[in-house]
Amino acid sequence: MKELVKRIRQFAKERDWVQFHSPKNLSMALSIETAEIMEHFQWKTTEESRKLDEETFNEVKDEIGDTFVYLLRLCDELDIDPLQAANDKMLKNAEKYPVAKAKGNSKKYTKL
Amino acid sequence: MKELVKRIRQFAKERDWVQFHSPKNLSMALSIETAEIMEHFQWKTTEESRKLDEETFNEVKDEIGDTFVYLLRLCDELDIDPLQAANDKMLKNAEKYPVAKAKGNSKKYTKL
Amino acid sequence: MKELVKRIRQFAKERDWVQFHSPKNLSMALSIETAEIMEHFQWKTTEESRKLDEETFNEVKDEIGDTFVYLLRLCDELDIDPLQAANDKMLKNAEKYPVAKAKGNSKKYTKL
Amino acid sequence: MKELVKRIRQFAKERDWVQFHSPKNLSMALSIETAEIMEHFQWKTTEESRKLDEETFNEVKDEIGDTFVYLLRLCDELDIDPLQAANDKMLKNAEKYPVAKAKGNSKKYTKL
Repeated sequence: MKELVKRIRQFAKERDWVQFHSPKNLSMALSIETAEIMEHFQWKTTEESRKLDEETFNEVKDEIGDTFVYLLRLCDELDIDPLQAANDKMLKNAEKYPVAKAKGNSKKYTKL
Repeated sequence: MKELVKRIRQFAKERDWVQFHSPKNLSMALSIETAEIMEHFQWKTTEESRKLDEETFNEVKDEIGDTFVYLLRLCDELDIDPLQAANDKMLKNAEKYPVAKAKGNSKKYTKL
Repeated sequence: MKELVKRIRQFAKERDWVQFHSPKNLSMALSIETAEIMEHFQWKTTEESRKLDEETFNEVKDEIGDTFVYLLRLCDELDIDPLQAANDKMLKNAEKYPVAKAKGNSKKYTKL
Repeated sequence: MKELVKRIRQFAKERDWVQFHSPKNLSMALSIETAEIMEHFQWKTTEESRKLDEETFNEVKDEIGDTFVYLLRLCDELDIDPLQAANDKMLKNAEKYPVAKAKGNSKKYTKL
């Protein structure tokens, strides 16, 4: 993953794009890419979304690639380690959603 | 990262949440989390977004954590390797945005 | 609707918020509000989303209210009439999606 | 606006698309359209976003049109009057953000 982070930073540097890469702008780019993932699923049933044809699968994979690229670029600019951020947040999520209360239940923790 | 993917999957299994984790639903969850990152930046200037106070930084880190969690959960359900997806997409991006054309320019490739 | 547009503008002026209301920032705010609508639907089936309990209905109505407020604020800043924008776009959509081709089909026009 | 709502409903009926128009799916479509508005602003400064060239202005107008179309379609399916939803929400917003506290301040009400 560290190599990928460097590769993405290098890509931006070569194109003189770091000037555009404020956290604000990157958060917009990240959100736009996730909308492009959703675009493939919006009219599908949940069942259909589990069995994609090859063409759609490859398009979704590309959008996931772009999403990960912007997530890593944002983390790089903010000096955040995404693995640590996710692991730390999982601890908080475990407290918000104890198994006994959350089992089989999709409600938000504020409504459990 | 593989350990984190397993940890997230286990977290969902223990809560019997895998039933809710269709790619369709996960794409929505992922997009919602990125909006929560944006929420911290919406009224800031790009300059302000580069120097966050400690409280905001920690809140952004949490939202980045949740975003990465859902991205990995989505990749797990679709059997996509996010590192490979990002590396493959970077090759395509390099073709779409050759340095000579894209340097210092933030236009979309369709308008370069 | 014109009265509502004025009311929203007045609300922003009284709070000295127009300085924050660049189209860029308003597009972020608008997108964040739509994510808050989605949040109520992310784990529901499509069928469940058609029959909301009263509490959820009222929460969704509030998020729809905020979405419309930011959409009108954005249109006001850009000097765009949302009714005309929608009517004009419907004409383009009718060309992109002729009934004969699009009937019962949820594919994007580029794939019809 | 009522005519526009009917026109959009008729457009969907003629194409046998109402089956796809659950509130869940429409909330996704709405969110995707707002991301398409943002796409035009992501790399612009706030100042640049206030002075769009004609081509960009027309593209933004089209995306605003689509956003309004999906917002009205969603309201139609949920039997919500968007004008009333916005007016009702403005009353709540006025309570959350009293002028004395909120003046010149872009903080969220939970942090005022």
